[in-house]
Amino acid sequence: MFEAAKVGRRVNKADFKTQVPELRTELLAAQRELKTSDTPVIVIVSGVEAAGKGEVVNRLNEWLDTRGLQTHAYWGESDEERERPRYWRFWRTIPPRGEIAIMFGSWYMSPLNDRVRNRISDAELDDELKRIAAFERMLTEDGALVVKFWFHLPEKEQRKRLKQLKRNDRSRWRMAPKLSNLSEHYQHFERVAERLIRLTDMGIAPWYQIEATDRRYRDLTVGRTLLESIRTRLNSPSPVCVDEISHAPSVPVSEQAQITVLDKVDLSRKLDRETYKSELKQLQAELNGLTWKAYAQGRSSVLVFEGVDAGGKGGAIRRITHGIDARLYRTIPVAAPTDEEKAQHYLWRFWRHIPRAGRVTIYDRSWYGRVLVERVEGFASDEEWRRAYAEINDFEEQLVESGVVLLKFWLHIDQDEQLHRFKQREETSYKKHKITDEDWRNRDRWGDYKTAVNEMVIRTSTEYSPWTLIPGNDKLYARINVLETVCDRLRSALSGKES
Amino acid sequence: MFEAAKVGRRVNKADFKTQVPELRTELLAAQRELKTSDTPVIVIVSGVEAAGKGEVVNRLNEWLDTRGLQTHAYWGESDEERERPRYWRFWRTIPPRGEIAIMFGSWYMSPLNDRVRNRISDAELDDELKRIAAFERMLTEDGALVVKFWFHLPEKEQRKRLKQLKRNDRSRWRMAPKLSNLSEHYQHFERVAERLIRLTDMGIAPWYQIEATDRRYRDLTVGRTLLESIRTRLNSPSPVCVDEISHAPSVPVSEQAQITVLDKVDLSRKLDRETYKSELKQLQAELNGLTWKAYAQGRSSVLVFEGVDAGGKGGAIRRITHGIDARLYRTIPVAAPTDEEKAQHYLWRFWRHIPRAGRVTIYDRSWYGRVLVERVEGFASDEEWRRAYAEINDFEEQLVESGVVLLKFWLHIDQDEQLHRFKQREETSYKKHKITDEDWRNRDRWGDYKTAVNEMVIRTSTEYSPWTLIPGNDKLYARINVLETVCDRLRSALSGKES
Repeated sequence: MFEAAKVGRRVNKADFKTQVPELRTELLAAQRELKTSDTPVIVIVSGVEAAGKGEVVNRLNEWLDTRGLQTHAYWGESDEERERPRYWRFWRTIPPRGEIAIMFGSWYMSPLNDRVRNRISDAELDDELKRIAAFERMLTEDGALVVKFWFHLPEKEQRKRLKQLKRNDRSRWRMAPKLSNLSEHYQHFERVAERLIRLTDMGIAPWYQIEATDRRYRDLTVGRTLLESIRTRLNSPSPVCVDEISHAPSVPVSEQAQITVLDKVDLSRKLDRETYKSELKQLQAELNGLTWKAYAQGRSSVLVFEGVDAGGKGGAIRRITHGIDARLYRTIPVAAPTDEEKAQHYLWRFWRHIPRAGRVTIYDRSWYGRVLVERVEGFASDEEWRRAYAEINDFEEQLVESGVVLLKFWLHIDQDEQLHRFKQREETSYKKHKITDEDWRNRDRWGDYKTAVNEMVIRTSTEYSPWTLIPGNDKLYARINVLETVCDRLRSALSGKES
Repeated sequence: MFEAAKVGRRVNKADFKTQVPELRTELLAAQRELKTSDTPVIVIVSGVEAAGKGEVVNRLNEWLDTRGLQTHAYWGESDEERERPRYWRFWRTIPPRGEIAIMFGSWYMSPLNDRVRNRISDAELDDELKRIAAFERMLTEDGALVVKFWFHLPEKEQRKRLKQLKRNDRSRWRMAPKLSNLSEHYQHFERVAERLIRLTDMGIAPWYQIEATDRRYRDLTVGRTLLESIRTRLNSPSPVCVDEISHAPSVPVSEQAQITVLDKVDLSRKLDRETYKSELKQLQAELNGLTWKAYAQGRSSVLVFEGVDAGGKGGAIRRITHGIDARLYRTIPVAAPTDEEKAQHYLWRFWRHIPRAGRVTIYDRSWYGRVLVERVEGFASDEEWRRAYAEINDFEEQLVESGVVLLKFWLHIDQDEQLHRFKQREETSYKKHKITDEDWRNRDRWGDYKTAVNEMVIRTSTEYSPWTLIPGNDKLYARINVLETVCDRLRSALSGKES
């Protein structure tokens, strides 16, 4: 695979000198145009050691406008990163739309290192590369341009450079942060690199192999490739992603198929106030103990609340938070995104609130807005909400893999009960603000919402993260049901039965 | 001082039950009104151990709308926090305008702990309290409402409660994160607490002592006090801060006094291209070594670039970044604030980019915008820019105290040179975007800017953080001058001559 990176391409000094000013002008022009576009650009810089990755990045920083340009290295995880799912550290460095981020190594670094050092097998590497491919696909489908550079050197050239670097006094520091010398096993490294490139070289996010022996050729080629990639994207903003999404019906078609999972929720369930009171007290006490235990064990939780308007989300959340020390939880009400959030993939604003070890984040509405309100109201395109199911499943899988206890609740009531509650809210002074025209409008689309919820449950109730449908007509029953579910899950997770 | 918190106030159950619904309604109403205001609310919860601070906060979380409400505890610093100036962790939890943050302990916690454990002296405590008072004043002047609650118990009651807590199985977890039992020395604790309250009890950010023996009295009183504080603020948005700012002339008045520091910059300095080239190369090489050494020592740097339009900031910054490995620095171009930034004190958006240990942040324009463009263009009120000098000095003092190497450059050119460069920019294709109508408008206000710069230098060129005025008419001379200054400062800081 790397033969083409060893043919000895060169650019002479004079040519370099004449070509650079023009390239720079065009890069700056492209960058300016980019700024007002919807495209974030991710430039991945990877390759063999001593290929001059740092030099290239410095060059790009010189040629481009540093306004709207970031460079990220991923040396050692901070504890804030270590205590969260692995990809959290990448999510926090994704550039906003219109900007460019240059990423050293990025998500490729640790699978590459781990495989080269034989810490993982080929099969494990492949799994990780599948995740990467899915991640890049997701970013690309959302409008990102992902440009991946692999810098390569022939073995002899690499050995020569490493010797020079070691002799050179100044570069002692440069060598310092590296864990150890990957290049001692050139052949093995090259074999792993080939596998890595092969499995993640996609039309939507291609790898560019750059011969790094001649610095002028290397830098000029990187600059031109980046320029061309940005230009192409700006000229054809969307056709990059092949639309693989079927517009076929979402669920099987037949009369019986119209019965949704929601129709099966037994809304007649009730609890008398006495039982409620005593169980509430007991469950909150247990939850208190469990969340402190989770804190001690460094186990974090994510609780997601979705439901029909006036379904009792707020009340259920309050009964939970009342059982948890305020220092351990955070409630994230999902309202309109800020402009920093709007400039990112829609999952970004949820990733940013993923709790540290031992903490609880409660989402009052969540990423499911994509396949609920955004679908029904048309805020998300067909393609966007249809591909969201897989994106969400992957996101949640990452949470669960990292040890997060994830619970998802749908609080359900019927239309009569909703009407009753809307009216009640209008009459109760401190609840009046909770009822708006929008609530009444949503009510008119009851059927559409039901279809959306049905499909959501079908597609995202996974083995590792099932939905809990809560019959909500009786508030007391619903609250106890939620609390019980949370306590059960925490109890079994903390006892080690589930990990 | 705490006598008033030991008089045995009580609220009986029936009264509590009747009063709570009304209080809740009003709290929610106030919170809704707050949401559209410019006021962030900071509620500080402090006091003796076992006073039930957690219970109070849970109560507030129950009464208030959790949308727009955050709770922060400050257990153990993360490494990302530890590697930055101490207040960074507080800045990152300041609520945006219209929202409420409940802070456990907050900035009072560590001085209180340190003094109680005799790790610091009264004098050191007082210094810290002065910093706190300045910090709260700054937030308040910017529109924040700071409400501070101190919960107190008589010694006997405290002892009883601690015994109960220890007996109680569930609360074993609750006790877990505490470092040790502060309450063993009630008298000593009370003495320190009194000093703390006395020195930070200001009209603009008063302490409210709450008798915590009776839980109903405690919670009701907190709720009412918070309600009243929010209401008062919403009814009179600004008169909270006594305007202490003089509108007297900023600099002495006389003909000679009109000579500014800028008139003393020797703009005739020049460097020939040959010398430039060799010095540039040598200095960049040295800078590269120094920044790697700083990385190894965990020493971070902050470089601030301000200057006349077309003064050569960008060029100077590029010559610096070219000498630093891209993994070690970050350039922060200061453009229009995002809406998340607008919702905070103006220093917030600079605090968020303060580098971790061993890294360099380069600000291309900075917090000095407040006393430059915002002053001249009237974007900041007279009060705002006048008080900014002290705010900035305090901010920079904190950076330097924490070990940050801080450098501030003003790149100066004269009007003829500026005109020349503007015209040149208009003619050079890849520089054309750098010249806008705004630049021409600013040029017309040359005199105003000069006055502002003069005052800025006079008021913020401190012993710990002096300004370096760079003669910029000759670009080559300016760049070398900047690089030399950076290298000199880093060299002496890293050799331990300066710490």
